[in-house]
Amino acid sequence: MEKINRILADIKPLDKEAMAGASKRQDILTKPQGSLGQLESLSAQIAGIKGNPRPRLDHKVIFTLAGDHGVTKEGVSAYPSEVTPQMVYNFLRGGAAINVLARHIGARVVIADLGVASILERHPDLKNRKVAMGTQNMAKGSAMSKEEAIRSIEAGMELVEAELSKGVDILGTGDMGIGNTTASSAITAALTGADVAAVTGRGTGVDDKGLEKKVKVIQKSLELNRPDPKDAIDVLSKVGGLEIGGITGVILAAARYRIPVVLDGFISGAAALIAASLSPQVKSFLIASHQSVEEGHRIILDHLGLKPLLNLGLRLGEGTGAALGISLVEASLKILDEMATFSEAGVSEKDDSLQK
Amino acid sequence: MEKINRILADIKPLDKEAMAGASKRQDILTKPQGSLGQLESLSAQIAGIKGNPRPRLDHKVIFTLAGDHGVTKEGVSAYPSEVTPQMVYNFLRGGAAINVLARHIGARVVIADLGVASILERHPDLKNRKVAMGTQNMAKGSAMSKEEAIRSIEAGMELVEAELSKGVDILGTGDMGIGNTTASSAITAALTGADVAAVTGRGTGVDDKGLEKKVKVIQKSLELNRPDPKDAIDVLSKVGGLEIGGITGVILAAARYRIPVVLDGFISGAAALIAASLSPQVKSFLIASHQSVEEGHRIILDHLGLKPLLNLGLRLGEGTGAALGISLVEASLKILDEMATFSEAGVSEKDDSLQK
Repeated sequence: MEKINRILADIKPLDKEAMAGASKRQDILTKPQGSLGQLESLSAQIAGIKGNPRPRLDHKVIFTLAGDHGVTKEGVSAYPSEVTPQMVYNFLRGGAAINVLARHIGARVVIADLGVASILERHPDLKNRKVAMGTQNMAKGSAMSKEEAIRSIEAGMELVEAELSKGVDILGTGDMGIGNTTASSAITAALTGADVAAVTGRGTGVDDKGLEKKVKVIQKSLELNRPDPKDAIDVLSKVGGLEIGGITGVILAAARYRIPVVLDGFISGAAALIAASLSPQVKSFLIASHQSVEEGHRIILDHLGLKPLLNLGLRLGEGTGAALGISLVEASLKILDEMATFSEAGVSEKDDSLQK
Repeated sequence: MEKINRILADIKPLDKEAMAGASKRQDILTKPQGSLGQLESLSAQIAGIKGNPRPRLDHKVIFTLAGDHGVTKEGVSAYPSEVTPQMVYNFLRGGAAINVLARHIGARVVIADLGVASILERHPDLKNRKVAMGTQNMAKGSAMSKEEAIRSIEAGMELVEAELSKGVDILGTGDMGIGNTTASSAITAALTGADVAAVTGRGTGVDDKGLEKKVKVIQKSLELNRPDPKDAIDVLSKVGGLEIGGITGVILAAARYRIPVVLDGFISGAAALIAASLSPQVKSFLIASHQSVEEGHRIILDHLGLKPLLNLGLRLGEGTGAALGISLVEASLKILDEMATFSEAGVSEKDDSLQK
């Protein structure tokens, strides 16, 4: 917990001066003020994070963290747990959606095993940060020990720190873990106080009966474990996941090292709830890439005060939405940096006399 | 009108076989079926347009068309008309938002003068397709003659045809014209039957009084000119714009030459209404990049049956939203082309037995 506390203590507010500098420049670029909407506010947010009124992004990184979930024994997912390691190998071979979208936006992908329930073959591109062989079944007891929850967060932090020397100007979060929408719904219900049914969706695709069962399993897990909504690490340990803890650590370290965080969907959102509960300041480092199909995601975004950039009906995870979001953030910074000002271009400014 | 009729006659439906091929492949890629939402349906649409179940985009082109509006004499815009030519020069020097975003997505920009109200300096990158020195003031009479309206559409068609040899795998539409939200609101009211106040917004930024005046000017123009809602060219000539006619031509030619059209915002939407009125089949070639702040845009998208990809509060025009949209379409095609299938990757498929 010492590492977590040290990182939390080092998270500082956004640089208001840099933000004001970015906004001031946006206002003199050759377009009506405010006409690029969220692209303008995004650029000011990144300026505040980086303490630079005209920042650029050279190094874009997606962190895709994998872990398994004991609760799959309750039959809450449409896919078997063996898909988690199979998909990790798919990531390593470059054949998954996240690989395609990371190439599209020019990002590198960091793939890490936080708690896959099988021993994975060594691979130069696989970061082995395994905390446990998956979580325990939360419908029968705590998903993990408090110690494991802390270690998963610290492992996420170390993943970010290990990349710093290669350059990380912006990062996206991603997940892989059969059963992890179940854990994310439980976390969301515990930390926002929302009804379980209101924050539970179909995940990879359960039918009506499966959804009903999933809601009951989550309700049972929360009643049995009674996570303390004031103690996010208690929530993570009792009904969370190892990859979710890892993403929490990635987010906290990003805020510490002044790196903008582009969140993927529901799983990343649950991790962000935990991170923001540990340090409310983290919220100002977050960008919501998209609005997931998962019902609980909107509740998370509202809770964090985030407006998603995209609404494409995505529900895949892996960091796919985050990749698309990073490209929009990059566009916002190129606008800020590359556009001509009214005076440079010799363009007339708004004529208020016409309104009189 | 002969050229328009020939192009209209040559617009053919989407290729259902290619669409089915794309959808079939999406279903065997390593992700839950449908989990990439609109990215999956987009890829099938492009397959249908191109008659290729696995298309790629090498050449991306944005067409940014400029024209002036006589109705600005009524004081309906926050900027003076001289901004139209100033911004054309800004496009030619690469300093405008559309230049920045086109570079971001790797697209080329075709800049054309359809009816700027001044003689522009020659420039190797400026296509001179001037039909008139701007439109007439529609609050006093017809914005243009029927002949000019037809010539503006044909000029747009010729712009696309002139680019074919350089390659146009997808195109985005864009506009520049002080006063053109006023014309677009009038077109939208005329062709959809919606109330003028419901389709009129603040454009580049008029205040409450300016908005009230703008609504009255549009109402007056419609009452005076009585455009026939069954005759889109009549609507274009009476209350439209030269760049709007040009964009209509770009859209129709794109459908003819099987090029997907990524629409920008409100102005492009008004042009699409005209194009779809001339040939309803055109709708299946359209992709709505974003939901503009302009109130009338949602009504246009509903009318055309289009769901926007982005909702970023944009209201700039130039093709800026279209550029961002093209990048998402490209992402959808890379997903279709580059992802591994379940059997290639050795990943287990959905386990329906878990739901029983």
